[in-house]
Amino acid sequence: MFEIPLAELVLEKLDRNDKTPLQRQLYQIIHDFINSGKLPPDRKLPSSRFLSKEAGISRITVSLVYERLVTEGYLYSREGSGTYVSKVVTPLKQADSVPAMKPWVYSERGARLLLNESSPPQPMGAFIPGIPDVSAFPFHIWRKILAKYYSKKYIHLSGYAESGGYMPLRKAIASYLAVSRSLQCDPDQIIVTFGTLQSLDLCTRLLSDAGQEAYIEDPTYWATASVLEAAGLKVHGMPLDQEGMVLEDEMISANAKFLYVTPSHQYPTGTVMSMQRREKMLALARKHQLWVIEDDYDCEFRNDEQHLPTLQSMDQDHQVIYFRTFSKSMFSGLRLSYMVVPPALAPAMRRAISNLYLPGMLQLQAALAEFIDEGHFYRHIKQMRTVYQERGELFRHELKRVFGRKIKISEGNSGLHLMATFDSLLSFEQFSLCASRHGLIVRQPYYRKATQNGLCMVLGYGGVPTGEIVQGVARLQQVFIEGERGLFFSG
Amino acid sequence: MFEIPLAELVLEKLDRNDKTPLQRQLYQIIHDFINSGKLPPDRKLPSSRFLSKEAGISRITVSLVYERLVTEGYLYSREGSGTYVSKVVTPLKQADSVPAMKPWVYSERGARLLLNESSPPQPMGAFIPGIPDVSAFPFHIWRKILAKYYSKKYIHLSGYAESGGYMPLRKAIASYLAVSRSLQCDPDQIIVTFGTLQSLDLCTRLLSDAGQEAYIEDPTYWATASVLEAAGLKVHGMPLDQEGMVLEDEMISANAKFLYVTPSHQYPTGTVMSMQRREKMLALARKHQLWVIEDDYDCEFRNDEQHLPTLQSMDQDHQVIYFRTFSKSMFSGLRLSYMVVPPALAPAMRRAISNLYLPGMLQLQAALAEFIDEGHFYRHIKQMRTVYQERGELFRHELKRVFGRKIKISEGNSGLHLMATFDSLLSFEQFSLCASRHGLIVRQPYYRKATQNGLCMVLGYGGVPTGEIVQGVARLQQVFIEGERGLFFSG
Repeated sequence: MFEIPLAELVLEKLDRNDKTPLQRQLYQIIHDFINSGKLPPDRKLPSSRFLSKEAGISRITVSLVYERLVTEGYLYSREGSGTYVSKVVTPLKQADSVPAMKPWVYSERGARLLLNESSPPQPMGAFIPGIPDVSAFPFHIWRKILAKYYSKKYIHLSGYAESGGYMPLRKAIASYLAVSRSLQCDPDQIIVTFGTLQSLDLCTRLLSDAGQEAYIEDPTYWATASVLEAAGLKVHGMPLDQEGMVLEDEMISANAKFLYVTPSHQYPTGTVMSMQRREKMLALARKHQLWVIEDDYDCEFRNDEQHLPTLQSMDQDHQVIYFRTFSKSMFSGLRLSYMVVPPALAPAMRRAISNLYLPGMLQLQAALAEFIDEGHFYRHIKQMRTVYQERGELFRHELKRVFGRKIKISEGNSGLHLMATFDSLLSFEQFSLCASRHGLIVRQPYYRKATQNGLCMVLGYGGVPTGEIVQGVARLQQVFIEGERGLFFSG
Repeated sequence: MFEIPLAELVLEKLDRNDKTPLQRQLYQIIHDFINSGKLPPDRKLPSSRFLSKEAGISRITVSLVYERLVTEGYLYSREGSGTYVSKVVTPLKQADSVPAMKPWVYSERGARLLLNESSPPQPMGAFIPGIPDVSAFPFHIWRKILAKYYSKKYIHLSGYAESGGYMPLRKAIASYLAVSRSLQCDPDQIIVTFGTLQSLDLCTRLLSDAGQEAYIEDPTYWATASVLEAAGLKVHGMPLDQEGMVLEDEMISANAKFLYVTPSHQYPTGTVMSMQRREKMLALARKHQLWVIEDDYDCEFRNDEQHLPTLQSMDQDHQVIYFRTFSKSMFSGLRLSYMVVPPALAPAMRRAISNLYLPGMLQLQAALAEFIDEGHFYRHIKQMRTVYQERGELFRHELKRVFGRKIKISEGNSGLHLMATFDSLLSFEQFSLCASRHGLIVRQPYYRKATQNGLCMVLGYGGVPTGEIVQGVARLQQVFIEGERGLFFSG
């Protein structure tokens, strides 16, 4: 049977003047080819990369259409080999007549959201960044405190939360911030949220409109851009120098609304924003009427002596919103975070969180308040700070020992991760595939404008037991050896 | 001293051609009047209602500006008396120079969000709707199960969730739906969320763009419109008849995207959507390529024999997204809900929830799975169904006995609330104020187009102990007596 080159047929059928989205058109084309027998059973489809290139459609569109046809039973995929037409097409639900076209196709913002970088495919292991070690977490204490609040005596905790969060928790946080971070605030300024992404989501909804603009560091945490863009904001990734984010007066658009920074420990490069740069950021924000979001995501685990003041403490103009999370200091899945907002913003923020999310989980909030007030939180952090410091030093030492001049490592020894650039011809995709065969998960720093030389990775060591670090580095080396050998033979 | 009528001055100063938002202008005007002494200490400001009317500014704008000036120390308010200029103006943070104008003012969508109806001011009590009775909840079992999962043995539950939720919970839900609701689905179709508002938020982000349109029932749950509008959708409240939502082919805009219905027990009227209307809704959705969101929010507590099939079960076209929550069947603050989505939509929905929220709380999900699998969930629901039925019957009986022909009550005896219309000259605000003095919280049904005659309320009885219902109705009566007497004397 004559084989039809799918890409050509698709190109011929696609109508770019048609208002029907390309995704729906592509789905309908392949669907019809299968139904009409033009694409016979077991025919292999071109790779999504190939079809994307040939037909001039984005790769995510092709992948989503393939994925949908697989789910619907029209196609099947074979691990590592490709995607094929099913032998017998059995749609999941049988319609009486020909199935009507479903109101499929994601929205524009939906497609953008799907296209963005995502969280790692598995929740822990070497060397996923951002994962704390929970093996030393005092679960026996936590469990006991938490269980106490699930009882008839605390029945008032089973309803929705007063918006802004459980007051004893907000008081505990305010005291903790004053002592540990020299950050003065009233518990009323604290808004408890269910993750930093929710904090950011609330800010975008209350303080910005679609079409406005935000300045973030480049690279930064992948999800920051996701959430900002999902809210319709235009995101500018600004480069970093030794002092932190580079942003000049004349670069700032009249439509700008947010400045999102991680001054105490830039993610993922580790740069500490200088005092002068902090003052500059605040001055720019004042001049251009921007909200400054200061994400102090892992400041518990900084080791250096010199803690510069937070932007929140320096803020004279009620323009800084301070973000913090318990994900790194307790455990990731806890999903409790908070914001410190300017006093005048607090009532509206409380109303917004209530209107959008109807928060609850008061037992969890009560338990965390007690855990902090009784000193368990501080003890745990103190212990983990030592653990992470040891791991960081060992990891850096091993990486340098094994890779020598072939590696450049980010400065400092704070936090739960480092950034490493390897002198290698391997692409990140090649390396990553090979690494996963060795049970290693590696992540790229999320650069918006790719400018780095070499193979750059964010490697988390916080969640890797100290005893496994040496072995982990050896496995990394093995991946390079195998990967480069493969490159040599195929190239 | 000559008293300046503030409203006139404001009208004179406001520049409607200026791009500066009215809120910021109004703030600046009052702020300057106070600083310049034009508004002297202890001067009473006009009520927000009066100023709003006189100056032609929305009331929420005036209230937010007053609120901000109170927070900043420029104004103070005296309970029940009004708002006054402070004796000594002490801004919360002292700037070195004149404080710069902060990047204040909510965004357009933020202001809309703040303007919307909100959750009740307190989380439980007579007669707040939507609150289940938790006094019979088996906390001793829940606590024991939950505590088990916070331990070293289950350390893998302390990370982020696989997107879509913990698989054993999704399996437990799928089995439960099959048995209790004749709803067939694969666990892969289930997406665990942290509240129905999050389910809705995900749908709007993935499947719609700003400017598209949604059809909801009028009245309906207040937060539905909040979340849809916060996502930039235009919301149409459609009237109800005996068979459910009234929607005709020719009413549907080309830009329509969602149809949001509560067919099994319309909120808050209690209407059950007829079989014919269900078929019509599905046909309209098919024709206009709409997503149908079926919110089956309290179907556990329906008492009538005849359970019509869900739209999800009738759906031949992969166009129905089914919403359900554990807030009513467990306790409100649990914040675990889920969606059943068409198979082809599941992978994208899992990716979207991960990119926007990074879900977690796996211990909670694991505990809920075990709670369902071990039969505790079903036993609790069965017990509560009888309790709520008794309360509903008693409440209806008492209301009719006390108010006789002066009350009309919604049909049926399902769920946790009823809708009552009183023949009274009192406005809802007058009644509500008087009710709160008697410790009663009443809520209005959220009508988008006010068309009801009489004084209409949604009264929740689910969370009111059976023994307190008779007394509660007596207090309601007392509120009417006092309220109408007040009306008589003042009018």
